[in-house]
Amino acid sequence: MITREDCAARDLRDPLARFRAAFSLPEGVVYLDGNSLGPLPRGVGERLSTVVADEWGKSLIRSWNHHGWMDLPLRVGDKIAPLIGAQPGEVAVTDSTSVDLFKLLAAALELRPGRRLIVSEAENFPTDLYMAQGLARLLSGPGGAGAGSGIDSGAGPELRMVPRAELAKNPAGALARFGDDVAVVMLTQVDYRSGHLFDLAEVTRAAHGTGALMLWDLSHSTGAVEVDLGGAGADLAVGCGYKYLNGGPGAPAFLYVPRHHQETMRSPLQGWLGHAAPFEFSADYRPAPGIARFLCGTPPILALSALDTALDLFAEVDMAVVRAKSVGLGELFLELVEQERDGLEGIEIACPRESAHRGSQVSLRHPEGYAVIQALIARGVIGDFRAPDILRFGLAPLYLRAVDVWDAIAHLREVLTTGAWDRPEFKARSQVT
Amino acid sequence: MITREDCAARDLRDPLARFRAAFSLPEGVVYLDGNSLGPLPRGVGERLSTVVADEWGKSLIRSWNHHGWMDLPLRVGDKIAPLIGAQPGEVAVTDSTSVDLFKLLAAALELRPGRRLIVSEAENFPTDLYMAQGLARLLSGPGGAGAGSGIDSGAGPELRMVPRAELAKNPAGALARFGDDVAVVMLTQVDYRSGHLFDLAEVTRAAHGTGALMLWDLSHSTGAVEVDLGGAGADLAVGCGYKYLNGGPGAPAFLYVPRHHQETMRSPLQGWLGHAAPFEFSADYRPAPGIARFLCGTPPILALSALDTALDLFAEVDMAVVRAKSVGLGELFLELVEQERDGLEGIEIACPRESAHRGSQVSLRHPEGYAVIQALIARGVIGDFRAPDILRFGLAPLYLRAVDVWDAIAHLREVLTTGAWDRPEFKARSQVT
Repeated sequence: MITREDCAARDLRDPLARFRAAFSLPEGVVYLDGNSLGPLPRGVGERLSTVVADEWGKSLIRSWNHHGWMDLPLRVGDKIAPLIGAQPGEVAVTDSTSVDLFKLLAAALELRPGRRLIVSEAENFPTDLYMAQGLARLLSGPGGAGAGSGIDSGAGPELRMVPRAELAKNPAGALARFGDDVAVVMLTQVDYRSGHLFDLAEVTRAAHGTGALMLWDLSHSTGAVEVDLGGAGADLAVGCGYKYLNGGPGAPAFLYVPRHHQETMRSPLQGWLGHAAPFEFSADYRPAPGIARFLCGTPPILALSALDTALDLFAEVDMAVVRAKSVGLGELFLELVEQERDGLEGIEIACPRESAHRGSQVSLRHPEGYAVIQALIARGVIGDFRAPDILRFGLAPLYLRAVDVWDAIAHLREVLTTGAWDRPEFKARSQVT
Repeated sequence: MITREDCAARDLRDPLARFRAAFSLPEGVVYLDGNSLGPLPRGVGERLSTVVADEWGKSLIRSWNHHGWMDLPLRVGDKIAPLIGAQPGEVAVTDSTSVDLFKLLAAALELRPGRRLIVSEAENFPTDLYMAQGLARLLSGPGGAGAGSGIDSGAGPELRMVPRAELAKNPAGALARFGDDVAVVMLTQVDYRSGHLFDLAEVTRAAHGTGALMLWDLSHSTGAVEVDLGGAGADLAVGCGYKYLNGGPGAPAFLYVPRHHQETMRSPLQGWLGHAAPFEFSADYRPAPGIARFLCGTPPILALSALDTALDLFAEVDMAVVRAKSVGLGELFLELVEQERDGLEGIEIACPRESAHRGSQVSLRHPEGYAVIQALIARGVIGDFRAPDILRFGLAPLYLRAVDVWDAIAHLREVLTTGAWDRPEFKARSQVT
């Protein structure tokens, strides 16, 4: 029997306990949605005030030089690099995850001429699939620009799906069916609904076994799961700035291209900031050396500055310690679900039970999941809902405590035993996120 | 002979005079670079503090609903609409100018099947050309993904140039050489170097005369020049948020697609926020109705909020009054250059002399233009340099006074007559913008 006191005792031994104070967390809120939008790190407001009032306000255009605005996309990238097993100069912060996926998918297709397939899985986050569909449509789809330009329809790339479970169990076998026609395998390491975690090294090896490039979406990994792209020999990656990295709503995304691919890959979105000499204003594009060629338009300085400051917290932590705490919180959550199962009628566990296969979230299932989540939010326990019936609880190790997990389960139990979720205002699907 | 007193008298009659106080302009600075980065509108810092501390900090993920974050890209778009002759629901604020150009170029090619050419001019802002080159390369270029995917090289779109002067003089004649092979004409209305202004309606008519779509880049127009996209029947447009709109460094861009094109056009960058029902998380892309289909990733809320507040200033002004003041400042600038010509050795006028053909900037030429601009900046007169020899002075009507123009010319005269520019620190090309 795990008591709240046990949890409090555990929090006293937490090596990351001091980081909680670095966040602005509202009184009375248990925030289990940091995998959707990380909370506000305390230094960010001040940094933005400085950037706005002093840099923009006083130095104006001169700030591009005087305050290092121009280098910010790569400087912030270098702060993310150690969290994902990348080297300095291998990560850039630019555009959105969606746009970065498009760039890297197109670059990957170019690097694997003669291979037609992009392989993913149907449960992947929709934008990943949509961007791949858009690229395939552009290059070859019916009615696409390709078709309109006299390009032979059907000859271009195609997105093909493999069940996630199959890829997890036997990635080499799952990919074998496509022979040597796979240009790039695109997967999200941690599934946004179930929290399932791929073995990044094993899947990368399997992709390479077919001669394909491996592109990882690390949106639900970075800052919560240990990732070693370099060690795994992964070819490409993208990730999100506003989830576990706490960079703020709509923060720019990052992309990873290791050094050995940089000079042979090109972005199809070749904006002026990816030019070798943007301020020559030459009429012909010449890609910048290194990761800078994957930049595109003018960097979003306000958003980059927020993310830059948010990342300072990660400079002080060991990702192994972060992961260990994340695993501990997940285990605790699931043990409490099992302990309280008599009070949790209708609840099923919807994430992997083994922590080695689970990212930094716990997912439950309930037929009235939407209303249950709304009832929890009304009590200050903020998780989120993912259709059709998933209750999703993100476990961000920098600010969550064991007592928060205990309180969340206690509230869940109360909501279910009292039927508190069964109210019209909780069942009305007015919430978009 | 125009004196500083004449200028001061003129400022007293300025119908826009009260707007100057709405900006945070440093003491002693004459800011003539608002066409590169607009200055800080006073309300923006407070708005960002609220968004950060209250919305992000306290409401957290709930702000997507409670604080209207989700609709912000279209709400801000609707504020831009009246400045460019668009209707509500025809403008979205999303991504960068570069990325938006890519979307609209690809969509335009799809709407004109069988036509291969993108026509532009070699003096266009480089990112416009680079993005078109990137799209052409992707679809057909040697070594492009198209080629790699078995697509017949050379069959795809191609970027072709026409001299700007020719397009300005006789657009129909300039485009006639391409017969019916032009899918889209892509031009920047106001040239970033010379300030030359196209007659938007006339060029649009000429493009339509060849059966092509007309795509305008309004980066150097919006907020300073009267634009009537709807009246001209222009098909597509993009523009910048951080120049005359004062949205902050790297502010998101806007794109315009009129209602009659919205349902037949699709973005190749089909991210989840452009989906008809993003929160269904379906595996297949279905474009949203209306302008929302041109959205892509998660909206950058901090940057959008800054631009949103900056645009409030424009709600109170009549663009005809803004343009009249802009023309007046430009005329004054050029009259003073002529009046002071004996003290301005080496200076040539590099912009159109007739205000009907000039945007909201004045460009001069000097063999040591780079050093001259640095010397001016050191004195607080901030213009910028564009290779090879252009001194560029943006004239933003909301905060500039006639006395500012007078002071700028006085400083220019001093810099040139005393040879103040001829110092190593002004000649060292260390400044990137």
